[in-house]
Amino acid sequence: MANLQELEQEELIKQLIELLEIGAYEAVRALDEKLHYADRAEIMEELSEELRQTYFELLDFEEASEVLEEVGSELFSELIEGMDEEKRSKVIDNMSQDDIVDKLSGLTEEKQEELLSYMDEDTASEVETLLEYEEDSAGGRMTKDYVTLTTEMTIDIAIEYLRQNAPGAETIYYVFVTDEAGILTGVISLRQLIVASPETKISEIMNENVISVYDDEDQEEVARLFSKYDFMVMPVVDKEEKLKGIITVDDILDVIEEEATEDIYKFAGSSDLEIYEEDDASWLRVVRSVRSRLPWLIITIFGGLLSGSVVARYQGTLDANAALAMFMPLLAGMGGNVGTQSSTITVRSIAVGYVEGKEAVRTFFLEVATGFAVGLVCSVIVGLAAMLTNSSTVISLIVGIAMFSNIVTAAAIGTLVPMIFKKLGVDPAVASAPFISTTVDITGLTIYFSLATVLIGKWMI
Amino acid sequence: MANLQELEQEELIKQLIELLEIGAYEAVRALDEKLHYADRAEIMEELSEELRQTYFELLDFEEASEVLEEVGSELFSELIEGMDEEKRSKVIDNMSQDDIVDKLSGLTEEKQEELLSYMDEDTASEVETLLEYEEDSAGGRMTKDYVTLTTEMTIDIAIEYLRQNAPGAETIYYVFVTDEAGILTGVISLRQLIVASPETKISEIMNENVISVYDDEDQEEVARLFSKYDFMVMPVVDKEEKLKGIITVDDILDVIEEEATEDIYKFAGSSDLEIYEEDDASWLRVVRSVRSRLPWLIITIFGGLLSGSVVARYQGTLDANAALAMFMPLLAGMGGNVGTQSSTITVRSIAVGYVEGKEAVRTFFLEVATGFAVGLVCSVIVGLAAMLTNSSTVISLIVGIAMFSNIVTAAAIGTLVPMIFKKLGVDPAVASAPFISTTVDITGLTIYFSLATVLIGKWMI
Repeated sequence: MANLQELEQEELIKQLIELLEIGAYEAVRALDEKLHYADRAEIMEELSEELRQTYFELLDFEEASEVLEEVGSELFSELIEGMDEEKRSKVIDNMSQDDIVDKLSGLTEEKQEELLSYMDEDTASEVETLLEYEEDSAGGRMTKDYVTLTTEMTIDIAIEYLRQNAPGAETIYYVFVTDEAGILTGVISLRQLIVASPETKISEIMNENVISVYDDEDQEEVARLFSKYDFMVMPVVDKEEKLKGIITVDDILDVIEEEATEDIYKFAGSSDLEIYEEDDASWLRVVRSVRSRLPWLIITIFGGLLSGSVVARYQGTLDANAALAMFMPLLAGMGGNVGTQSSTITVRSIAVGYVEGKEAVRTFFLEVATGFAVGLVCSVIVGLAAMLTNSSTVISLIVGIAMFSNIVTAAAIGTLVPMIFKKLGVDPAVASAPFISTTVDITGLTIYFSLATVLIGKWMI
Repeated sequence: MANLQELEQEELIKQLIELLEIGAYEAVRALDEKLHYADRAEIMEELSEELRQTYFELLDFEEASEVLEEVGSELFSELIEGMDEEKRSKVIDNMSQDDIVDKLSGLTEEKQEELLSYMDEDTASEVETLLEYEEDSAGGRMTKDYVTLTTEMTIDIAIEYLRQNAPGAETIYYVFVTDEAGILTGVISLRQLIVASPETKISEIMNENVISVYDDEDQEEVARLFSKYDFMVMPVVDKEEKLKGIITVDDILDVIEEEATEDIYKFAGSSDLEIYEEDDASWLRVVRSVRSRLPWLIITIFGGLLSGSVVARYQGTLDANAALAMFMPLLAGMGGNVGTQSSTITVRSIAVGYVEGKEAVRTFFLEVATGFAVGLVCSVIVGLAAMLTNSSTVISLIVGIAMFSNIVTAAAIGTLVPMIFKKLGVDPAVASAPFISTTVDITGLTIYFSLATVLIGKWMI
């Protein structure tokens, strides 16, 4: 019974909703205890507004604050407003600050003001400080909810200090140490504290080599450090090395997922505008989708018109050999796909830090070598297919050679463009599928038709 | 001095390598102390084999084992083989098991056998058990390096037990509790242990609702649970609910990054074969690239030939109106891009758990609505562009209407296909860029030419 697997949990959630609907509140409470706060928050999202209020009122203030940490911004503001004053102040006091900031930053400034007015002065001013940081910076991700030790404390005093001050803190498993001026000077683990002798000074056993981040550091870089060093928590400092907050690893899991989604969308030629909350209104999502995607599509239009002008330039060759038109989609499609494959792999390799210095040159040659191998196989298949579908030998040969050159060019362009962007300080992800496939369309058609013009001219006479 | 920022660190690494090269070993040691093991491992990878051995010998066995946890498989096996027997057994004993398993699983079976022979019997047999799990299952990610408490212990005994047995364990911040049969019955945090009164029994204060995973669970699902519940550690059980191992959050960061890379590659039409280690040989990478990408490209060829047959079918219309050829690349390109955008966003939404039940229907209509809006804007631009480039009014109109229908169809196909795949139990990521753009090519050309055939026939007479 103690061991909850995912399926059992879904079953519990269903039962709980049914019990709520028939008003069996005691049974609800009994079941509720078996559920994690994240699951209770999920239940909240699924309930009608009325049942939601009933359910929420069943929770004591500690439970309420844990559940509030897990819900979305809109629901957070609805539930906070629905509480009586006394419970509200207790609940807010018990919530972790970075979560409050997270919810507030999803709301309008007006709503923010209103919710800030419910908090005591200290909390409100700390939350306001945090709200001023960019959402995707270290400062925007950190919490001020931690305890610090000072270098001069002895172990027994430090442990007593933690007992008294830590209950609300986000983590006490790694505690940071500052000097009198608040400057970060070391870190000590709860484990070290427990095994050390009571009269030792913190400064004697703390680790002085703390890796920290500045408060304006980008969250993607922070995530990279967490994953490189296997940290559970990292300190955030200002430019004077004063400790400003801490970031815990659970927030970093979200960052990594968010950044991956952003990268994936960019590949498809859509901006990060398109990462919306689940509770966004429908019309808002459509407007944002259109705004994120249109820029790339308009570039595609001009690229497409350019490709068209290539076709127009060789209209003579095309008119004389109508069969050439039949292989246009095939050549363009293959070039686009090979180019997209190469650029996707290059952009991701740059993002995870694989492609630097010598490695870049090696990656380029490996991609071109792959293009050669793939090109050989595909050009033979396509050439044979052309012959089997009754094209002349010359046309089959042209299609085969064009296919090969096309694939090699596409692999080269797909690899080079993101690397050049990186060098120029442009986000390599701009070399997305739409950009690459449009570029490769133009080079591919030029290769195909110029080859056709030259070869047909030579051999047909 | 205590506070290391990334730039300072790179400077330190450079200095350290220079000092090693001139043989100033004492200075190397002094500098070394300021570096994290992950940085020392990075230095290892950059050094020549000779300098690497020299540097590695400077480390004591504790440092050596920490560094070994951070290097790649190849380097791990090189360094282990280079050590004398006594140091080796100490080093291996001090390493965390899941890291040993991780390195071994990147090596040939022969090498695995050899390295296993260096370990003591206990470790070797535990590592062998772990090696038998699928690499990307919960079992393959877990470690057996942990301590458990039993329900009947009192707090003071438990704390003493941890002091004696925990030094090598991966985490003691959350300790799992089992009954006499080894069945998982609860969890308790170090924090709870410290604040509880000494004579309390574990069973009285432990949390009985432990969320666990089965050892054969997929790592992606494990990562989802970590991120949903903000866990630092999760217990892994077998089908009898017996505790088999634990997974810590630092390994989950890698899983999330790995799975994101896998998804990104799949979008581009490449399989997970292509996720290689940095130290893979060049020829191996090319072979694997070709094998990962060819299947999709061969499907693209057949798709392209099908598209070609659409063109061939309307050859009459095309011959009579040569200008139609000019807009083929544009229409195909736009359809491909819109389809890829829709499918990418749908596949990612499915992956992060946004699209289920009612939400699926809503997503479909929102994508089609986006297609409508985007289609309107693009068809006007393209229609005008066609008129400006001296196409006749009929052709401009055909191009505009085709563009609009093409974009709406592409958005619908791009959204529906991944959803249908999901329903059928096929990985939605199969609806990748190559698949969608090829499908949309065929529908787009059919729309274009059939429209042209009908309209030109009607209006030209």
